[in-house]
Amino acid sequence: MGRVSAPPSGRIAILGFGLIGGSIARALAKTGSSVSSVSGRPAVVAWSPSGVGPARAVHDGVIDEASATMLGALEGADLLVIAAPPLETIGIIAGLGAEGRGRLAKDAVITDVASTKGIIVNAAAQAGLRFVGGHPMAGLEATGYAAGRADLFVDRPWVIVPPRPEDPAAVARVRWLALACGARPMELGAGDHDAAVAAISHLPLVASAALVEAVAGGGEGSEADPAWPLAAEIAAGGWTSMTRLARGDARMGAGIAATNAAALAADLRRFRAVLDSWISALESADGVDATALEARLRTARARLVERDSA
Amino acid sequence: MGRVSAPPSGRIAILGFGLIGGSIARALAKTGSSVSSVSGRPAVVAWSPSGVGPARAVHDGVIDEASATMLGALEGADLLVIAAPPLETIGIIAGLGAEGRGRLAKDAVITDVASTKGIIVNAAAQAGLRFVGGHPMAGLEATGYAAGRADLFVDRPWVIVPPRPEDPAAVARVRWLALACGARPMELGAGDHDAAVAAISHLPLVASAALVEAVAGGGEGSEADPAWPLAAEIAAGGWTSMTRLARGDARMGAGIAATNAAALAADLRRFRAVLDSWISALESADGVDATALEARLRTARARLVERDSA
Repeated sequence: MGRVSAPPSGRIAILGFGLIGGSIARALAKTGSSVSSVSGRPAVVAWSPSGVGPARAVHDGVIDEASATMLGALEGADLLVIAAPPLETIGIIAGLGAEGRGRLAKDAVITDVASTKGIIVNAAAQAGLRFVGGHPMAGLEATGYAAGRADLFVDRPWVIVPPRPEDPAAVARVRWLALACGARPMELGAGDHDAAVAAISHLPLVASAALVEAVAGGGEGSEADPAWPLAAEIAAGGWTSMTRLARGDARMGAGIAATNAAALAADLRRFRAVLDSWISALESADGVDATALEARLRTARARLVERDSA
Repeated sequence: MGRVSAPPSGRIAILGFGLIGGSIARALAKTGSSVSSVSGRPAVVAWSPSGVGPARAVHDGVIDEASATMLGALEGADLLVIAAPPLETIGIIAGLGAEGRGRLAKDAVITDVASTKGIIVNAAAQAGLRFVGGHPMAGLEATGYAAGRADLFVDRPWVIVPPRPEDPAAVARVRWLALACGARPMELGAGDHDAAVAAISHLPLVASAALVEAVAGGGEGSEADPAWPLAAEIAAGGWTSMTRLARGDARMGAGIAATNAAALAADLRRFRAVLDSWISALESADGVDATALEARLRTARARLVERDSA
């Protein structure tokens, strides 16, 4: 994991305190014991709109302080972690203002954890913040501080988007955070990150929701499949696994789609083209070629298995 | 669970001995102890093309006999369970012939476990078999006898497609099998069954494979997404859950698609229309309406939750 140093004065502020913010706090609370290469234990203060999670975290001994106000949480922090959904993250970046920046420690670094990076790092640059984009590649269906886990990020990639112009000291502080959470820091450009997560995270999310809409109804003018009432009674593991993502937080999902719309739309077009080729194969005037379908399914399976062993 | 009686002379033949056939055998082996309303314990003989599973099941004490030949397994059986993938099931039905039928007990009933019913019950009717269609709504990603579980069907629906003209005694024997496995028998017409499983099982399967093809490549002329090599490195739980079905048995999947092609293609068209509306929403000239997307996702989520509590 390499040598890492604690943030200068060791004060970390977390804004937003759901599954991710809460899990970061839990991981930091264990830092002293579980991450031997990280020295010291920073003071952690958190704020969330409801205040419920931070209050409980203080009670649990997970954080040092729950701030009643967002601005209050910033006081003297060297590292500010915005742990909010994408649209809220943009709102916080735009809303920090001179007053918010003035409360932070002089050389404070700001990072975030949202699923899209291009729009967010641009917003931070426009706001003149010392900002390093972040995205820990871990999650759970469950939401909220209570669902958080200290080991959520262990051995998972934690994408870091370095600013332009370069700021190695700022990047080092966010790498410290990732390592303190047990994650593997991975530096990427915002565009590369957004294209990658569009493919393996945002497209699957929309595919899951669209599957529900196509079968159970509820989309733009889409009625339920006439077979749905009966189908719902006999649905088994395949349906459960393919609709799990559609059970996630709607506000978060909408923010993800809205802030990575171009890359996501491009991937949806790719997906649709593949579905078209399935429809053609199934409606072939010569009858269905089961051997060809088997070969397709075998190839798709092989692509997944190749990756397992990569 | 109601009163059920054992098959007359208590001899059951299972042809094909993978996850489903093996799990049926395991469940029957436990019948005496775990299903108190089922009296007696039938003799079970199994055959599979390789013979590996049946031999091991004899060794495990799960079945009474492993037959070296398919015809040999039929001797004196009152209940024949064809536990093969859809295309193989059709092949066995067509291939039983006068010799196969002659080996069964005089009033023997034949059933199956395949995911599609219309084509299969028609094939059985054409072959002049005393046939009741069956489809236990349970499964696992794993395949083969070794992966089987005695409790695989417990409290799961077991669809039964009664023959025309009616044959209540034959239906009762297949209901007995479902109950002996701990499942909930549910009578359906073949068309209703096929439309329902197209929606909640076959569409999800093709969506999963198509997602892999769109992102990792491998479909008909579809190249991998340029982002795939990087995306594969950071893929998390969403990708795993949406591609689980694409790891299933390719031969089985192709048979399912080929034998339920019309209903599946209709559902793929519904799915594609919903994806089109997502693409339009993301590419709107007025910008993305995140509030509208959130409402869509909230509705989709509500449809799933409604069903949980139904």
